[in-house]
Amino acid sequence: MPNDHSLTPPKSALQPGQLLARGVCRHMQTHNFVTVEELVPTSGLRVDIMALGPKCEIWVIECKSSRADFMGDQKWQGYLEWCDRFFWAVDEDFPTDLLPEGTGLIIADAYDAEILRMGPQSKLAAPRRRVMMQKFARHAAQRLHRLRDPDSAFPGSGLGR
Amino acid sequence: MPNDHSLTPPKSALQPGQLLARGVCRHMQTHNFVTVEELVPTSGLRVDIMALGPKCEIWVIECKSSRADFMGDQKWQGYLEWCDRFFWAVDEDFPTDLLPEGTGLIIADAYDAEILRMGPQSKLAAPRRRVMMQKFARHAAQRLHRLRDPDSAFPGSGLGR
Repeated sequence: MPNDHSLTPPKSALQPGQLLARGVCRHMQTHNFVTVEELVPTSGLRVDIMALGPKCEIWVIECKSSRADFMGDQKWQGYLEWCDRFFWAVDEDFPTDLLPEGTGLIIADAYDAEILRMGPQSKLAAPRRRVMMQKFARHAAQRLHRLRDPDSAFPGSGLGR
Repeated sequence: MPNDHSLTPPKSALQPGQLLARGVCRHMQTHNFVTVEELVPTSGLRVDIMALGPKCEIWVIECKSSRADFMGDQKWQGYLEWCDRFFWAVDEDFPTDLLPEGTGLIIADAYDAEILRMGPQSKLAAPRRRVMMQKFARHAAQRLHRLRDPDSAFPGSGLGR
């Protein structure tokens, strides 16, 4: 069941992976990318961060706070078909030699991040890119709407009240 | 100079036009549209509401709280080229015979709205639709990011601190 932990939690409520995500999202702004968290590209998958670039590049970034967190991820290869590039984001103590080849690497903390290795590019086909742009736009607008008008019901989102 | 009045103001701070916008945005959800407020399609223009539909329809909705508010709008015709359909949103006391022909009409209050007359469709060309989708996605994600991480700087947005 989806949780709503990306909706303006107090800082103290953020889990280690969410703190990494915060730093990554801050850093992506410096590349003129915008970001959303917890987007569902297709049923059963939910990415930590989807980033949309100035040329409509679509990147997926999975945040791993520990070896155990990484080892428990059975789904990451399923994300590859939904993005142009895939990255891991980990902190500086993470044993990065665990990470599979052919993936990007971002070192992050709660405040910023740095791209150490670009994920190889595998460009989305135009129709899928359009679909992902639409999903990104809808996801961002729905989350924003919930924050700017919390009393609004959200039919079909399972979040009405 | 842009103001940030769409960023979760207390309800009491909402102006009449913003209350109409709130009702309109709530109603658009029932049509499976998502919405953002105060989007800038091109330099010098800022729409009250841009709504994105389930088939990537792009509608612009201008909220007018009074005759004076409407009479002071010299820019609305400039919005037509940025959307598939254009609507006015007014309250039930507004003298709707003031409104130009060939535009849509929504009657709204702070809590809900109803589409009384569809704006005629003038479909965007595919390249412009893609641009508007991107602008919508970036606008929504940037506003959302500012709310979920208020301490983040926003380079290039003029809102850094």
